[in-house]
Amino acid sequence: MNIPEGHPRYRSLMIREALVRGLDEGLVGRAGLIAHGRGEAFDYMFGEKTNDFAMDAIIASAASLLLARHPVISVNGNVAALVRKETVTLSRLIPADIEVNLFYWTKDREQNIVRAFKKECPECIIHTQGNEKMIPGPTSERSRVSLEGILDADVVLVPLEDGDRVEYLSACNKRTIAVDLNPFSRTAKNADITIVDNVVRAFPALIEEVEKIREMSRAQLRELSKFDNRLNLERAIGLLKGRI
Amino acid sequence: MNIPEGHPRYRSLMIREALVRGLDEGLVGRAGLIAHGRGEAFDYMFGEKTNDFAMDAIIASAASLLLARHPVISVNGNVAALVRKETVTLSRLIPADIEVNLFYWTKDREQNIVRAFKKECPECIIHTQGNEKMIPGPTSERSRVSLEGILDADVVLVPLEDGDRVEYLSACNKRTIAVDLNPFSRTAKNADITIVDNVVRAFPALIEEVEKIREMSRAQLRELSKFDNRLNLERAIGLLKGRI
Repeated sequence: MNIPEGHPRYRSLMIREALVRGLDEGLVGRAGLIAHGRGEAFDYMFGEKTNDFAMDAIIASAASLLLARHPVISVNGNVAALVRKETVTLSRLIPADIEVNLFYWTKDREQNIVRAFKKECPECIIHTQGNEKMIPGPTSERSRVSLEGILDADVVLVPLEDGDRVEYLSACNKRTIAVDLNPFSRTAKNADITIVDNVVRAFPALIEEVEKIREMSRAQLRELSKFDNRLNLERAIGLLKGRI
Repeated sequence: MNIPEGHPRYRSLMIREALVRGLDEGLVGRAGLIAHGRGEAFDYMFGEKTNDFAMDAIIASAASLLLARHPVISVNGNVAALVRKETVTLSRLIPADIEVNLFYWTKDREQNIVRAFKKECPECIIHTQGNEKMIPGPTSERSRVSLEGILDADVVLVPLEDGDRVEYLSACNKRTIAVDLNPFSRTAKNADITIVDNVVRAFPALIEEVEKIREMSRAQLRELSKFDNRLNLERAIGLLKGRI
């Protein structure tokens, strides 16, 4: 593809390229491209930067992940295409398992994503969607989880979710951390912590934060992990309103 | 794909399906899926309906198209996938030529789109991107136009543009009508008339309006074609602000 460098949306178009490459590599689902576009619109309105409210959510997320008994990072095609390396770095640092969870599930795409992660990190534990269903029984493929992964997890990081999955995870009493640029989405509202930021900026910032606080005491981490998600989303919406 | 009917985004997911089908048929570019997602986010915030300001723009557009010496409807992959039948109906009613114009141009995709339109309408004039460049020479493929089509047109309907094309058309003194859900975009700002609505609703409404006013006198049409785009975009932005 031939994008002129002078194009005012050059950077954003380059991220698109990474996703389109992911599509060609069998990692990204076609609907994942559309979901990405939705995020782009919000990113644009938020000024395409990590705002204060996002940074606060990142700090609480880092502490929650470090405190967890069994943290799992749930990944889909877009995460695999956009922040695969960063996911692996996080997984090693915390440490946390990785579990592939696809809305439009196919065995092929699941295996492509597993292989891509295994290539990056041969020793990483990569769970796949098993036949266990989260209660109360949702109807989409996405509700299937792994017995040793998400079903056992106490904290689940679910970046780039589009739908009802965080609701189910919350109903199962799991602490959920979402990365979602749409502060009005059900995912954003239902998560315990929502990082309203582009995942390509949020994950590096999360890594930096985990590195910074990982030697702290559990008491200190508990303090940092406290978070009022509703209030934080209001801050995000306030900025949006101001910018419009 | 298996989308549960109870999914709260069911309708929006069905439109996505049409685009994904368009991708499989070689009509839609992969980046077109992302661009669609951006629109979706705005559509969601606008309440997924044709608002007053959109209806006013549709009336002015219908009148402008009927008054034109040589109106052209510029189509890309997303238009071909989402509103092909409606484009043909408009083309016959006004009457207007159709011209295929692709940001990520390939001969194959251009030909697939031409064939899809020819199948729907064997007698329709379908121009393709020629080697004529619009002044002042832009750098993208999209600047290429047909000598007998857009280069000769006085009014151009450009739905679903993402970028700088409307600027070039305006610089060539063509009256431009855009369909764009992002009221902040350069396309929205630079067009003479911007219909801030989803093309799947805007095109049927435009057809209905053309049918309603086509027997009017030129003086009456001229009255209806008067439009303050800046003011209209402010109305759209006002609604957005209110809803947030």
